[in-house]
Amino acid sequence: MTGHIERKLAALGETLPGAPAPAANYVPFVKVGDLLFVSGQISKGPDGLIIGQLGADMDMAAGQKAAKVCALNLLAQVKAACNGDLDRLVRVVKLGGFVNATADFTDHPAVINGASDFIGELLGESGQHARAAVGSSSLPFGVAVEIEAIFQVR
Amino acid sequence: MTGHIERKLAALGETLPGAPAPAANYVPFVKVGDLLFVSGQISKGPDGLIIGQLGADMDMAAGQKAAKVCALNLLAQVKAACNGDLDRLVRVVKLGGFVNATADFTDHPAVINGASDFIGELLGESGQHARAAVGSSSLPFGVAVEIEAIFQVR
Amino acid sequence: MTGHIERKLAALGETLPGAPAPAANYVPFVKVGDLLFVSGQISKGPDGLIIGQLGADMDMAAGQKAAKVCALNLLAQVKAACNGDLDRLVRVVKLGGFVNATADFTDHPAVINGASDFIGELLGESGQHARAAVGSSSLPFGVAVEIEAIFQVR
Repeated sequence: MTGHIERKLAALGETLPGAPAPAANYVPFVKVGDLLFVSGQISKGPDGLIIGQLGADMDMAAGQKAAKVCALNLLAQVKAACNGDLDRLVRVVKLGGFVNATADFTDHPAVINGASDFIGELLGESGQHARAAVGSSSLPFGVAVEIEAIFQVR
Repeated sequence: MTGHIERKLAALGETLPGAPAPAANYVPFVKVGDLLFVSGQISKGPDGLIIGQLGADMDMAAGQKAAKVCALNLLAQVKAACNGDLDRLVRVVKLGGFVNATADFTDHPAVINGASDFIGELLGESGQHARAAVGSSSLPFGVAVEIEAIFQVR
Repeated sequence: MTGHIERKLAALGETLPGAPAPAANYVPFVKVGDLLFVSGQISKGPDGLIIGQLGADMDMAAGQKAAKVCALNLLAQVKAACNGDLDRLVRVVKLGGFVNATADFTDHPAVINGASDFIGELLGESGQHARAAVGSSSLPFGVAVEIEAIFQVR
């Protein structure tokens, strides 16, 4: 039986990827009490890595797509942490968004909106999250966006 | 009736701004248990955005002023989260300070002290916080400093 | 009497440094409930600061060594937070790794593995942590790596 959130995902025309394996020697999430700390998820979609630098070779639409892919990967990790039941997600607490960006780039919030807008559309009130969005001089594998997150789960 | 912390603020010659609205599609804070996660606050004061890059066009004094403005914005969010009663603040747990900085800049801790020193002066023991201070290649709208934070509130 | 974890450290040929003093006006850790938030620890070892930028003047082996030094400093803070008894460490929850890196550097995960591999070897299952690894345009004092962390302690 598919849960409420996954039916909404399907209605939005999206499917969760398999939970991405960590890029190195760490685990994708750790749960302490009802807080779930999820490792930084990079912009790696079904078609591979989304590589680029905002302010240089990547435009806003592509950056927002990259951020949305990070959000899908984060939700895939939440599902895995909840033994497949995404409806155990209580609240998206905080996103930490890192944008691969040049020194003169100024639109980091709009880029990370690619994740925030999608989460808002999917989850409504329980998707309302705190957030930071900053520029990084570079990111793993040259990806455009990396987002780490804290969730509340039951 | 003004609370203890706000009277101290006034004695220091400071007033809290209104809690800044988020720059995009997220909320300024999320509370889970007694932990309050506050979104990254940028250096935007009563006179507008404080823009610049440390190591390039901004000196230390201006950078510290920018960090202090971030701290005021963080406290404004705490007040809003506590329904106007800043005295419900138990402890400043952690600041995450991002400094818009060139590759050869090395004084990030001194910049973020603009926030830490002010918080220490205002709050004393309950203001003693853990902290990270790092350089960002760029920040939203070109601001000099962004600080996110975790607070303990009752 | 030396605890279990410190005996394992000795067997690995390592000793904890004294808990490094903060670089500025903040405290090295704050505990809320069983969560211990530790300030960003920089790559400063017994021989001094480990300075450099990945992608420019520092190679991978040196970057990994810098990350390991950050991990030792983090554990020194945990020991101090636990009144000298490192065995009160329940779980390494999350590392936030910042790599001083050029715009074309792409191997941030391998650098931060210098910390993650060491923690895994030392702590086994309780060392399995969530993680983010990103590039910073610059770091305090020109160090190669800074890592902040959250631990669960009893």
